Amino acid sequence: MFEKIAIVGVGLIGGSLARVVKEKHLASTVVGLGRGSENLQKALELGVIDVMEYDLASGIRDADLVVLATPVGGLPTMMERIAPLVRPDAVVTDVGSVKAPVVHAAHSCFPKPVRFVGGHPVAGTEYSGVAASFATLFADRRCILTPTESSDPDAVQSVKTLWEAAGSEVVMMDVDTHDQIMGFVSHLPHVIAYALVHTVGRAEPGGENLLPFTAGGFRDFTRIASSHPEMWRDICLENHDALMEDLDAFEDVFREFKELVSCRDGTGLEGRFQESRRIRAAVPGARPREESPGK
Amino acid sequence: MFEKIAIVGVGLIGGSLARVVKEKHLASTVVGLGRGSENLQKALELGVIDVMEYDLASGIRDADLVVLATPVGGLPTMMERIAPLVRPDAVVTDVGSVKAPVVHAAHSCFPKPVRFVGGHPVAGTEYSGVAASFATLFADRRCILTPTESSDPDAVQSVKTLWEAAGSEVVMMDVDTHDQIMGFVSHLPHVIAYALVHTVGRAEPGGENLLPFTAGGFRDFTRIASSHPEMWRDICLENHDALMEDLDAFEDVFREFKELVSCRDGTGLEGRFQESRRIRAAVPGARPREESPGK
Repeated sequence: MFEKIAIVGVGLIGGSLARVVKEKHLASTVVGLGRGSENLQKALELGVIDVMEYDLASGIRDADLVVLATPVGGLPTMMERIAPLVRPDAVVTDVGSVKAPVVHAAHSCFPKPVRFVGGHPVAGTEYSGVAASFATLFADRRCILTPTESSDPDAVQSVKTLWEAAGSEVVMMDVDTHDQIMGFVSHLPHVIAYALVHTVGRAEPGGENLLPFTAGGFRDFTRIASSHPEMWRDICLENHDALMEDLDAFEDVFREFKELVSCRDGTGLEGRFQESRRIRAAVPGARPREESPGK
Repeated sequence: MFEKIAIVGVGLIGGSLARVVKEKHLASTVVGLGRGSENLQKALELGVIDVMEYDLASGIRDADLVVLATPVGGLPTMMERIAPLVRPDAVVTDVGSVKAPVVHAAHSCFPKPVRFVGGHPVAGTEYSGVAASFATLFADRRCILTPTESSDPDAVQSVKTLWEAAGSEVVMMDVDTHDQIMGFVSHLPHVIAYALVHTVGRAEPGGENLLPFTAGGFRDFTRIASSHPEMWRDICLENHDALMEDLDAFEDVFREFKELVSCRDGTGLEGRFQESRRIRAAVPGARPREESPGK
């Protein structure tokens, strides 16, 4: 499918995609690039990549597919650096959680029709680094691609085929819709989870000593608060406008709920909680009642 | 250990405790009481209880242990009803998530030394009803007991032994400390999760159509928003004062985080996220890095 794939940033996502490429024989060679020599060395040892390379120009020069899997904050600058270095026929894609900044940067750096295709595999764990990667990470997950009118259709098809080979359902979407949706269903929950963990950590009396009293609900609720700090800093900054709207929207609902508690409105609370339960039943992977651990 | 145990409310918690009693042969007879005939009939069919009874007086009259496992809002009134009905030597306990109202009610209804012992197994799932119950629900979880100076030491020991038989680690605590801690680590997260699900459900454009775009993080984060609405209404009302303090504390932290996003303070955000990750590592059951699914 490809001759040589260069993956810039061989972490959880880049490493898992590299594993897919190796397992499915999608390329003759996988070159891994990155800042951390220890992580790259590990990727080589694990057989996730064939070659490690520190120099960007050397690493991507011959590649017919370049995948950018570094924190999203650096991607616009990365576009400017790599645009003059890649083969004219190379397809370039990324895996960033925010799409507008990188897609806009790509369209100003690459010649038209643009062979860069923005991508976002909606998958992940709270771990990072190549050691946490696994080939089935993307299986049965969605991967959102954000081509534009200037995108090269062949490049779009190549990236689509790549993610389908990884087991993902590929969904096409414009960049702004993507960033708005992800702000609500991913970026907002992360900020809330981080804030909750801080709240409990600062609680008086007890603070962090309260943590042994937490049960499975708190553990699951806060799992995303163990996510990669630098990555999430970038996401908050890059999706600033949409996230601010989402934070405002949540604050409104939170205040409404707090007011119901404050004035002891049992009927109002129960109604809201019933509605939450109903809405949540549509979340993919929500265990139906029949799969309760009690069964 | 007991002759006859009466369990009032054979739902997830009451039903799971009944299963423990049957499996460990802790009593000759388990009587199940409740409002819903369908659920009680199911409990009988499943062999979780030996006898079903709708009449409170008949059901608890001969019992030497009475376990109240109904929503916490009705427990203070329940105390007044059952105090004149139980055997003088009966031990009475509950499983409510808020302890001050029920313990205070018990101490005004029962003769001293009080043979009521407040209890709270820190365990649960997002399901309810006897069909969701299972005997290992309490294994390796904490169960908090809240005896007072007026408590009968033998009654406390009986309840302690019961929960230890269920596999729980029993922890003694005063009622106010219990309610404060649970407000932070359980009640606050539930209100936040309910509010987040509402926020996404109301989001424009898309609303509930955004849910298919959620990944595992959102699913786990919002699991507790599928919890029993009536039970959580009661908890919010009964632990009103502590919960209001917790909601205020969270709102302060949330606003601080929102301000960092608003003014694009990347350093501040990354520092907070790192701290959250560090604090969260102390949550029981947080998968250590070595148990990443990639391993």
